[in-house]
Amino acid sequence: MFLVELVPAIQMGGHLLRLYHFWSSTCSRKVRICLAEKKLEWESRHVDIVNNRDNLKMWYLNLNSNGVVPTLEHDGRIVIESNIILEYLDDSFPDTRLKPNDSFQISKMRLWLDRAETVVHKYVNVLSWNRRHIPRMKHLSHEQHLKILEQIPNAETRMVRIKRLEHGVLDTDEDFAKARLSEFMDAMEEELNGNTWLAGDNFSLADIAIAPFIERFEANNLDDLINFKKRPKIGSWWEKLISRESFRTAYAFKNPDD
Amino acid sequence: MFLVELVPAIQMGGHLLRLYHFWSSTCSRKVRICLAEKKLEWESRHVDIVNNRDNLKMWYLNLNSNGVVPTLEHDGRIVIESNIILEYLDDSFPDTRLKPNDSFQISKMRLWLDRAETVVHKYVNVLSWNRRHIPRMKHLSHEQHLKILEQIPNAETRMVRIKRLEHGVLDTDEDFAKARLSEFMDAMEEELNGNTWLAGDNFSLADIAIAPFIERFEANNLDDLINFKKRPKIGSWWEKLISRESFRTAYAFKNPDD
Repeated sequence: MFLVELVPAIQMGGHLLRLYHFWSSTCSRKVRICLAEKKLEWESRHVDIVNNRDNLKMWYLNLNSNGVVPTLEHDGRIVIESNIILEYLDDSFPDTRLKPNDSFQISKMRLWLDRAETVVHKYVNVLSWNRRHIPRMKHLSHEQHLKILEQIPNAETRMVRIKRLEHGVLDTDEDFAKARLSEFMDAMEEELNGNTWLAGDNFSLADIAIAPFIERFEANNLDDLINFKKRPKIGSWWEKLISRESFRTAYAFKNPDD
Repeated sequence: MFLVELVPAIQMGGHLLRLYHFWSSTCSRKVRICLAEKKLEWESRHVDIVNNRDNLKMWYLNLNSNGVVPTLEHDGRIVIESNIILEYLDDSFPDTRLKPNDSFQISKMRLWLDRAETVVHKYVNVLSWNRRHIPRMKHLSHEQHLKILEQIPNAETRMVRIKRLEHGVLDTDEDFAKARLSEFMDAMEEELNGNTWLAGDNFSLADIAIAPFIERFEANNLDDLINFKKRPKIGSWWEKLISRESFRTAYAFKNPDD
């Protein structure tokens, strides 16, 4: 299913699609679900953001100056930011349409895409600091850890992460993050009360943009957020989602460097 | 040119377009430029966010739960978030197209839309606290000011603003904000070095989304950012932009409650 590194460029109807991504990155999974929904062939360029920190190397920063995954390359043209990549793929390969037909439903879809990044991604990131990031970095001294964070090219992300290292993520920060995510899940439950999918009757980019974060709630043991007895509509939506071939394909991609 | 409050619903080719907006709000101006480019008629519903704080009243929160302007109403359907409103107007009224034709250029347009909010809006807001917000609120006691900020419905915005009131916006915060905006302007200068407009050869939503912030740099006396000798391509772009009828129309809307 997935193509190993360094295979020759794959031509897909005359197109070369290459994804620079990390196997377990949430935003990489968003894009892999979209590629699988559209049944597009693509070349994998695995970017090890944990051990090798390939994302901070010059060759990668030349593609994506923020040093984050994923990056899409399409016939030599570079597209960054996962939400923008999703819309780009839908604009460029419209045969399997992943947008609603109606402009109002499209605007709702875009609101979910926006919230996926400005709310969900942001606060999952706060909550995974103590749960996943710190244990993963425990072999490093404070100075070694700081040195790594100081290499983050985006000044705002760098500042936020260094503050976290210096001051920690406190219980009050965690409570605030959980409350925002809980509000978000309430809004989702309300939306799904009237609709099968997040932007109407058809599966769309909105569902793709949110899905990998629900999996992150599970991975971070945020049990209250994924208590589907409390939010049964999200429970049914999630069941339908994880049984899609695209979701299974995107998640079947394992670390090729292991 | 603009329609007074409480006129009967205006039908525009069978469509009612109503904009809830504030005369000097940057994001309201974005939408008014777009409406003018498309020569759409619309009904004005002025929302006084400064003196009456109409945006925090229940009738408005029912339209826009974040309590921010603008909100677009189109045949009874509510669209929020200025960038999403811009794309919605372009999708719904495509006769005057404000997107590039090519999907790659569209992705670049969307990157500018994103940066307009996640970088420019965010940091102009930091810089206008001491320059504009505090003088405007100087007739209030600390407690009165706090009480107003406590009414902000969006929990994150509320927290950020209350922190600002308690701790102030320090020189280091201002320097950080100026550096981010300066980087942004450098990226814009580079883009305009090869293109007439931000997303290629044609004026697009990207130009609309950025333009009102340049005016905010002027209003906040951020002279270094608008030193067009330093960034001549932005200077030429700005000259072309402010001479467009749409820009003049959007800015001609003055406070109807004055």
